Parts: sequence; structure tokens; C-alpha cells
Amino acid sequence: MTERIYFDWNATAPLRNEARAALEDALALANPSSVHAEGRAARYAVERAREEVAALVGAKPADVFFTSGGTEANMLALSPAIEISDDKRPRGRLLMSAIEHASVRTGGRFPREAVAEIPVDADGRASLAALKAAVAASPRPLVTIMLANNETGVVQPIAEAAAIAHAAGGLLLVDAAQAAGRIACDIGTLGADILTLSAHKIGGPKGVGAMVRAGEAIHFPDPLIRGGGQERGMRAGTENVAGIAAFGAAAAVARRERAAEAARMLALRDELEEGLRAVSPKVVIFGAAAERLPNTTLFAVEGTKAETAIIALDLEGVAVSSGSACSSGKVQPSHVLAAMGISPALVRGAVRVSLGWTTTKAAVGRFLDAWRKVSGALSRSSKERPGMAA
Amino acid sequence: MTERIYFDWNATAPLRNEARAALEDALALANPSSVHAEGRAARYAVERAREEVAALVGAKPADVFFTSGGTEANMLALSPAIEISDDKRPRGRLLMSAIEHASVRTGGRFPREAVAEIPVDADGRASLAALKAAVAASPRPLVTIMLANNETGVVQPIAEAAAIAHAAGGLLLVDAAQAAGRIACDIGTLGADILTLSAHKIGGPKGVGAMVRAGEAIHFPDPLIRGGGQERGMRAGTENVAGIAAFGAAAAVARRERAAEAARMLALRDELEEGLRAVSPKVVIFGAAAERLPNTTLFAVEGTKAETAIIALDLEGVAVSSGSACSSGKVQPSHVLAAMGISPALVRGAVRVSLGWTTTKAAVGRFLDAWRKVSGALSRSSKERPGMAA
Repeated sequence: MTERIYFDWNATAPLRNEARAALEDALALANPSSVHAEGRAARYAVERAREEVAALVGAKPADVFFTSGGTEANMLALSPAIEISDDKRPRGRLLMSAIEHASVRTGGRFPREAVAEIPVDADGRASLAALKAAVAASPRPLVTIMLANNETGVVQPIAEAAAIAHAAGGLLLVDAAQAAGRIACDIGTLGADILTLSAHKIGGPKGVGAMVRAGEAIHFPDPLIRGGGQERGMRAGTENVAGIAAFGAAAAVARRERAAEAARMLALRDELEEGLRAVSPKVVIFGAAAERLPNTTLFAVEGTKAETAIIALDLEGVAVSSGSACSSGKVQPSHVLAAMGISPALVRGAVRVSLGWTTTKAAVGRFLDAWRKVSGALSRSSKERPGMAA
Repeated sequence: MTERIYFDWNATAPLRNEARAALEDALALANPSSVHAEGRAARYAVERAREEVAALVGAKPADVFFTSGGTEANMLALSPAIEISDDKRPRGRLLMSAIEHASVRTGGRFPREAVAEIPVDADGRASLAALKAAVAASPRPLVTIMLANNETGVVQPIAEAAAIAHAAGGLLLVDAAQAAGRIACDIGTLGADILTLSAHKIGGPKGVGAMVRAGEAIHFPDPLIRGGGQERGMRAGTENVAGIAAFGAAAAVARRERAAEAARMLALRDELEEGLRAVSPKVVIFGAAAERLPNTTLFAVEGTKAETAIIALDLEGVAVSSGSACSSGKVQPSHVLAAMGISPALVRGAVRVSLGWTTTKAAVGRFLDAWRKVSGALSRSSKERPGMAA
């Protein structure tokens, strides 16, 4: 049996060897809140990891707060009570791009009526003109735009959005879950006030993430999970010590290898897209005109249903997805593509291929072989049963 | 160098070998929400663990919701929006015992003014008479009483409390974090409507827990962490797959070994307490007249400060604590002992010893040797500097 091809790295990346080693070492550690030697060793592991995660995004360790993942980090940050320096009035408005992750789209702890969407253009980039208008209409907003979209990979104009938000007394939350480890992610350069991260997207384990703030001027008087004094009162509960240690190790590798890996990814992705265009001349690659993550291709061929294609590829030994994995098996039309104005017929065909550090040139070739086979069969069957392909 | 003695199992238990094996196996798994073969394998691991955790507390797998730990599980459950069958009116009152864990004492999502405390008696048992009176004054409350206290180990009268709560249309939340795996914990026998669990107290990893409901009649329309549809919409965020798999494995061992282990624990604990009384005839063992967890002893000798004793024991190679580890290094007088009416002088001396499945008779002997040495030195120094011992 040939080895399977895992091309769904945006859903989750395999655990880095370095992360696994750190995790296995940390499994024996005690409760970091205990004052005895065992507790202090656990505390040390958590604080070492905090330094590594801080370094990945150019922040200070004291500005990193560990959570159970990107979703919790977003929920924690999305609070009207967020403060900067001595501006303690609640934020009345949450402005979010139309292509945010489900965990941001809930609006966190903002009332539903306080949330407004910023549209994106046909390439999937948040509209700065629309943001400017929205900020003018509601000053001091919390603005939230992801650094790179999980479905299309399109990189968002964060520095520009930060300038617009700040000019109006606003704050900017940037969900960097998909971007971290793939493109530069320096909180200062981006101008973000808060950045959220997910360990398992960069080769750490599932169940760990972080909220990072730009500096101690930013306060969160409204923690989501309260109880013990962990994470300096920002996030109660005994720390996921092993997961955090592994997150730190993954962050260190991601920081070290990002630039070289991005170049390698891009070459493989270009080859993959060239191959797709050769096999399926009518293929549409979403966001292709925009800057994208080097590892992500979201594409569709009209008349090919994503669900069917994904199952067929799975049987061929290739794991890809139809977009976000977070909707728990529910196949729903992508809100990201809908926001880009893509026709529903094409949206239904969207297949996401996402690569990572173990992806080889040979795997790209095998994916293209599988796609050739599957798309040929699907296109024949759609011609035979035209009613079924709608 | 002699091996250290870890007697702080109520802060965190070492990872069970079975849990470590399950965790290491699950580290390579993908995102359980993905529809491809890799995703389905991850889903299978999560659902297997759900069955094991359900079995530990006599619940149905569909009634188990995984969280990032006991604290999050308590925050999730402590909502005025909790519903049973078609009783959808918000709960106006949260009645909690005076000895709850910090994560319950916050009141979760109840407004502060809606929270009232139920006192405990001198042995640390919640007062059923007080509960009756409180329930009569505010019908349909959410009542929350832990199954066993983390500091004293005192087991609470849960079945009786459940009857009182239910008679008034109330619901009962039982924090079973310390009790699970140590005493019987069947949700039906207890009469609890919701039970919360922490994996790392039963030999699973830190960073995983669960909220368990008595049946599907109980609804939580107000999830704490929202976003993707994970945990049937009750708890968003990519699952901590490896942590959950390990939790399941730990639950299976805990269920299998609990009865035998409890008997062994009790014998060791009796020996330890006998030894303590021999070394320190004036020792007070808190809650000694009540039913306690078989592994927990909270004691004090007047004139001996806990902080000093714990540091001295640590230097002797023995890890114990002064109560809850969750206050993050802050040494605060125990609210549990204060609620029991213990004098502040004695409260300041409270040392918690908690045992577990690797604890041997020899370790108990070594602890007693260390205590003899430390308490002798401390008592001499307190006699020499009486002002320092107050």
C-alpha cells in the first residue's frame, strides 16, 4: 500500500519532532502553581515556552497568555471590556472582516447588534475603504482581521488596517492562527494590539494556543475563564504543561525554519497549481491575484462537487478538505467565498489543498495524478447525469 | 541522592502509564472535524475516550463534553441559562457551599449578587439545614457542592443535597475533580445534574477535563467558548485529541482500580496519621470526624507555620502543599478552614499531604522521618523566637 498524502495542513499540522520531544519530557511535570521543587520545574517549562512563543511574534514573554487554543484566545480577546492605557470605557463596536474564522464570527462577548462586517474584494482582501468608513461611523471600535485566511490563504492588509483603527482610537485584534510559521508575524511590524495563535497549526499539539498583546498598556479586565490566579489572573485553570512546552518547541522551530520553508512551499505550490491548470484548464484558483500563504491553494472546477471530490481523493489516499475543518463535518457553503462574490455553483466545488514541511515534490506529483483520475471520473459522471452536478 | 517523595497528589497526579501510552499514540492524529481518513481516526480516538469517561461516572457518552480542564468545565456549567426539560426560565440564584474550589467561587457567569454561600460545619461538611433554608428562600436555584473537598478531603452529603435542590425545582452541579477515581462517583447515584471532572487529578494530563450531564434533558444554551461546532456545539475549538485520549485511558484505569486502591490508600493514610500524632501529639487533623477521601490529610500544629514547614520538607525531599495549588504561589489563608471556624493561628499552619497509586509504605515512613526532623527544628526555633511564630 502506498503511503497516504496529507494535504490538509491548514486543518492541522503533524506534530513537529521537537514538539513531541518537549511534550514527552514535560509529561512527568507537576502543577506549576505548587511551590515545591516539582512545581518549580513545571513552572520553568511553562515560562521557557512562553519565551519561545513570544519570540515567534516579536512580543515580550509577559505579554503572552496561554489558552486551550486559538478559539479560546479569540473568545478571550473579543471583549467590549478590553482597555488600553487609561482608556477604560467599554468598546461599543466590533468591526470584523467578512472572512473571519468561526471563533471570531461569533463576536466573542460582544452583543450581536454591536458587530458589523467589513467586506472583502473579489480577491478576498478586506476592504480598507470600507474599514475607513466603518471606523469613521463608530470611533474606538475593536477591529478584527485575520492575518491570513484559513481557506484561501489570502494575506490581509494588517498594517494598513492597524493605522486606520488606531487613528480612530480603535484597537486591532489579529487572528494569526494560519499565518504563524508561514509568513512573518511580528506583532510590532503588523501594528496589531492583540494577536492570537494556535499551537497545532505550527506543529504543536491540539489543545493549546495563546493570546499575545502588544504591550502591558493593553488590559483585559474581563477574563473568560476565572478561578485560580494562573496566567497572571487572565486565564484560570491548571496549565496544560506538556502542551505548552510542546507549543514552545514548535514555535522555536517555526521561527528558525520559516523563511527557508516558505520558499520551498511556494515552489511546490506553484508546481501544484501549474499541474492543476494543466489537468483542469477551467480551474479557478481563489485569491490567486492576491498575496497568499505559500502553502495554500483553494480551487474549484465548475460542475465538480467538493464533497464528492474529497471522498474520491480520500479513497485515492489523498487527504484534502473543502475549507475549514471547524464546522464539524457539516458541509456548508464557504462564507469566505460567498463574501468574495463567488457564484454558489463554484463555491460548492471548492477544494482546499494545504502543504507543510514534510510535503515533497513527489507528493505533489501523486496528488496531481489522483486529481487527474478523480476529476476525469467526476467530470464523466457529471456529463452522464447532468442533473446531479448542479 | 534518595528519591523524592511526592505527597501532593491533590495538586496533580503523575500521568498513568496507560494514559501516557494513549497520549503518545494519539499525538499523530489529525483534526477530528476533517472528513478524510486521518480525520476519522482522530474522531474515533475522541469518541472512545468519551465512552471511558462516561463509564467512570455512570453517564452516557453523549452526555460528556470535553473541556480544557475542571476550571473551564465549572465556568461552562455555572450559567443562569442552564435548562432542564422545558424549564427555560433563567436561574436567579446560585447557592454554593463555602468550601468550593476557586473556579466555582467566582460564580461562573452568575452575577455576583445572585450568589449565596451555604456554610459548613466544624468538620467541613456543607450544612443541609442551611441549604434547605436557602432553597426555600430562593426556589429553582443552581446549587453547587463539590463531591470531596480538595484541601480536607471531606466528602459532602451530595445525595441529600440533590434531594433538597430537586424538591425546589433546583439543579445540582457537583465538582468531582478531587473525588473521581478515589471514591464512587456515579452521577445517577449521587443525584447530580451536572458533574465536572479534571483529567490530571486521575492520572491523565493537565489541560483536559469534562462536564458531564445526567441526561439530555439538561441543556446549556449558553456555551462559554463558541465558534466551530465541536462537542455538539457546546464547546468550540479543535479538540485536544491526545489529551482527551489520555483522559479516557486514565478514566479506564481509575474505574478498574478504584476500590482496591482506595483500601490501600486508607491503610497508608491511617499509618501516616498515627505517625503524625506520635510525632506531634498536639496535631489537629481537619475533618477527621467526617468521611474523607482515602488519600488526603490536612493537618496543623499550632505554632508551626505552613510556609516554613513546606519549604523545610521540600529541602528534605518531600513535596507537600499548604492547600490548593491553584492560587498560583500566593499563600493565602484557606477559605475552607476559615469556613470550618478554625482559628487563624491554626489555619496558618495547615499542611496538606495527599497520596496516590505509587505511594508506598516506605514513603510514608520517610515522610514521617522528615516531619519529625522538620517539626522538631521548627518547634525549637519557635521557642527560641516566640515572636516569629505568631
